[in-house]
Amino acid sequence: MINIVKIGGNVIDSEEALDKFLSVFSAMQGDKILVHGGGKIATTISKELGIETQMINGRRVTDKNTLDVVTMVYAGLINKTIVANLQSKNCNAIGLSGADGRVITAQKRSPIPVDYGFVGDIAVEKMNTQLISILLKEQYTPIFSAITYDGYQGVLNCNADSIASSLAVALSKHADVNLIYCFEKKGVLENVDNPNSVISLITDENYATLKNRNIVSEGMLPKIDNALNAIKSGVKMVIIKSAEDLLNTNAGTTIK
Amino acid sequence: MINIVKIGGNVIDSEEALDKFLSVFSAMQGDKILVHGGGKIATTISKELGIETQMINGRRVTDKNTLDVVTMVYAGLINKTIVANLQSKNCNAIGLSGADGRVITAQKRSPIPVDYGFVGDIAVEKMNTQLISILLKEQYTPIFSAITYDGYQGVLNCNADSIASSLAVALSKHADVNLIYCFEKKGVLENVDNPNSVISLITDENYATLKNRNIVSEGMLPKIDNALNAIKSGVKMVIIKSAEDLLNTNAGTTIK
Repeated sequence: MINIVKIGGNVIDSEEALDKFLSVFSAMQGDKILVHGGGKIATTISKELGIETQMINGRRVTDKNTLDVVTMVYAGLINKTIVANLQSKNCNAIGLSGADGRVITAQKRSPIPVDYGFVGDIAVEKMNTQLISILLKEQYTPIFSAITYDGYQGVLNCNADSIASSLAVALSKHADVNLIYCFEKKGVLENVDNPNSVISLITDENYATLKNRNIVSEGMLPKIDNALNAIKSGVKMVIIKSAEDLLNTNAGTTIK
Repeated sequence: MINIVKIGGNVIDSEEALDKFLSVFSAMQGDKILVHGGGKIATTISKELGIETQMINGRRVTDKNTLDVVTMVYAGLINKTIVANLQSKNCNAIGLSGADGRVITAQKRSPIPVDYGFVGDIAVEKMNTQLISILLKEQYTPIFSAITYDGYQGVLNCNADSIASSLAVALSKHADVNLIYCFEKKGVLENVDNPNSVISLITDENYATLKNRNIVSEGMLPKIDNALNAIKSGVKMVIIKSAEDLLNTNAGTTIK
């Protein structure tokens, strides 16, 4: 059994929240992988370097200068901050980008209809999970930033959610894999105004009903669609929950 | 036999020189490890971020902001640029800092007599070469930046020469290790004004004579002292040569 945990900006942007989360993550038993997003640091540093951050549909447009910044910040600063912190908590972490060991190759996204620049879509058929299997067998914990190999001489910026689900799908060919998305809420909510109205289980069957009744908010739909696709591709369970509830097996929304 | 190759700023600062070097490095047969320094990029980025770079005796004083910059630049930008480039040359590179897999722990240097800030001296007795052995056995090529684990929750800036020699000494307990320092000259010169006056062999015996006759320039003395210490600690050979001559076994200065 491998647990793949993805954390986003809300955990990374707060030193205290990150430290607390990493304590909980290091206490998690068994084989595990952490995938981290970028948070606001890349935007702050871009600004200080005089590079304008452009977002389209909530996604960062990545020109060459921005690619350098996200490579520095995600694969360098954030990744090594997490790795060193986990080492202090007796978790033998090893930080990786998709280029390391050629684990994750992505294809530069077509500039049509929207040119996002150096942004890639993961080529699942080119993934090299051999390195991950070796590291897990030897009790190392891989920590992935959302930087991937472009198949040529460079790297591409990627979505951390996609990194996590691609790793989950690829590894599920050899092992049982749970994919856990940690975010700022307790799970998928039945009522967005009630933070405790967590829908505990979503399956193909009740999802149609939830959608028809407009219960699931629009922002959650792609996340759940991706989760159901991961399940169809062999992932055992996808869980959407708060970072604080990582070890609470009854918390969050389970999709299977 | 493991070859550990260290490259410095003169190779890293030129995109063309780096690409050329990586072609040669990827063609090198057998187990190998690359250790890279930082070059001028960290200074440039520090400047753009409004962080003043302070050097004492040719060494970078590393305050917290500077530590963040070198972590970003060395472990992020430069390391992943090298890794992605090597992947394109069919060398299955994996980029590491000393914190990853807890390979290299360093101790923060005493602020007396000179306070260099977040700079560490490697604790050779705490090195974890198990990860390196596993990776080499599986045909991966580790690429080290000069960032180390501080033994607590953070990282420390280190000298890339020391990273290379510490790795060489630690790995020589299990295998024959050659340590190759690539620099801007063809080797240790008998006459600094003649770039071709390479001293081909330095041993304990002729080193005393070379020193007494003032043949070796002052800047080279610590390099050679370190090399002789590495030999005494089990490293088979230390070679000081130009990056361009990496594959030419007759080039450079051999210390043994």
